[in-house]
Amino acid sequence: MSAPRNSPSPSRSSYKNAPTRSVSVDGVDFAYRELGPEDGVPLVLLIHLAGNLDNWDPRVVDGLATRHRVITFGNRGVGGSGGSTPDTIEGMAHDAVRFIRALGFDQVDLFGLSMGGFVAQVIAAEEPHLVRKVILAGTGPAGGHGIDKVPTLAVRATIRGALTRQDPKLSIFFTDTASGRRAGRAFLRRLEERTDNRDKDISLTSVRAQMKAIKRWGRQAPSDLSAIHQPVLVANGENDRMVPSRNTIDLAARLPKSELVPLYPDAAHGGVFQNHEDFVARALGFLES
Amino acid sequence: MSAPRNSPSPSRSSYKNAPTRSVSVDGVDFAYRELGPEDGVPLVLLIHLAGNLDNWDPRVVDGLATRHRVITFGNRGVGGSGGSTPDTIEGMAHDAVRFIRALGFDQVDLFGLSMGGFVAQVIAAEEPHLVRKVILAGTGPAGGHGIDKVPTLAVRATIRGALTRQDPKLSIFFTDTASGRRAGRAFLRRLEERTDNRDKDISLTSVRAQMKAIKRWGRQAPSDLSAIHQPVLVANGENDRMVPSRNTIDLAARLPKSELVPLYPDAAHGGVFQNHEDFVARALGFLES
Repeated sequence: MSAPRNSPSPSRSSYKNAPTRSVSVDGVDFAYRELGPEDGVPLVLLIHLAGNLDNWDPRVVDGLATRHRVITFGNRGVGGSGGSTPDTIEGMAHDAVRFIRALGFDQVDLFGLSMGGFVAQVIAAEEPHLVRKVILAGTGPAGGHGIDKVPTLAVRATIRGALTRQDPKLSIFFTDTASGRRAGRAFLRRLEERTDNRDKDISLTSVRAQMKAIKRWGRQAPSDLSAIHQPVLVANGENDRMVPSRNTIDLAARLPKSELVPLYPDAAHGGVFQNHEDFVARALGFLES
Repeated sequence: MSAPRNSPSPSRSSYKNAPTRSVSVDGVDFAYRELGPEDGVPLVLLIHLAGNLDNWDPRVVDGLATRHRVITFGNRGVGGSGGSTPDTIEGMAHDAVRFIRALGFDQVDLFGLSMGGFVAQVIAAEEPHLVRKVILAGTGPAGGHGIDKVPTLAVRATIRGALTRQDPKLSIFFTDTASGRRAGRAFLRRLEERTDNRDKDISLTSVRAQMKAIKRWGRQAPSDLSAIHQPVLVANGENDRMVPSRNTIDLAARLPKSELVPLYPDAAHGGVFQNHEDFVARALGFLES
């Protein structure tokens, strides 16, 4: 790996300490954080269902930020961002585009995880000039196998988590094996590294809007992925039970310019968090190729 | 208060250390715990939705056990009890009756909390000779106002709890005031006092069966409460949002031999846990009157 193109200031070097800023998008304040070098094409991250700024694995963000300007943000109505959350993936995509333009960017790379990956696909297809490259993890195409079940599975995992006094993220993102559980606990600890100025929790109303959007995306007619002309890196765990792993294979097969990271063994929906070192290295290679 | 009628052995003096036993009910093992003096009419406790043996406030159980043989048990399919959980309140009531008879009792008192209170009402009406007195807390009659919404509210509280990293029991059982939150945290600590041989967590399948039963109970035609001839003590918090407090008033008004504990101020569905000292004193007085 080559050295960073310029040296970030300390406050731009670690997601744990990255300040939360906001930018007005058509009169609504969108919360965001950025870190990494200021030059080059920025990489905009799109988070999963119910996630706020603090749901990004700091190892993944910090790793990507060694060589790219990385931007995380809360979509409309999520965490510290104002307004009400759209109940369609398309609505979220349009908001994300307006946010990106509000920051003054005319070209970005996108990294979408799970629901964020649905949003990234819409943006890439609709904004061919705005989007240079795309990374998709733990996600699938519109109408993809089992995607309409994601909300139900998430609710079940949440109830089961409450009954067993376990964070539902363990069963959602990790396998139920010794190494999966160990990786899950390490991930949860990483999410707690930031202690100051954490993002606001997402509201139940916003989660329900997102669930509606995901269900619709899952029941939609299969989208024409040949409309996505950008290079796309696709990754996931081998055992994703939320957005079944075969959707990842399907994306790689149907996207015209795709590159598939071999599915991570003994890993699930959070495969790129569990294998953050390998994933960051591959993502950096892809973005720079 | 008079002294216990006989002196319980140490293992019978504290719910925290009460061994978990089991008794075969038509070939299915039911898990239970008992403590308190062995003579007198036993008091059988009927727990709330998703609760297992460890969801009883040890202060309430220990308080009642100073003068009564107290028995907690897991209904069919719940925690350490075998079989599959019925999806009707009537089915749970029939199982509870079989459990009580399997222990060899021909007369008991009942204390039902929330869903357990629905079950207690059915048993009291159907088994006038088996049941001597009944205590009902945080509960309501069949067809009672808002009861069919309990499952939805419980799921929402669980999701909101997961999003805010808070035990959903706080918002389900306590008010969102300084004293309510303090009482809630103290209650959660009491539930953790038992460290050895805790009950198995209830399965999601069993919770779903119970939710179906509660919804049915809430949508049922109002039951004829004049069929309950036993003396009934009715208690709740003033601000119960799960089984709205007006159901408690309604029970007291419609039950032929009722006694209403003045609704506990700044208290919700877990009002009898929050006010365990007062509640235990009143319950003991009622059982002995």
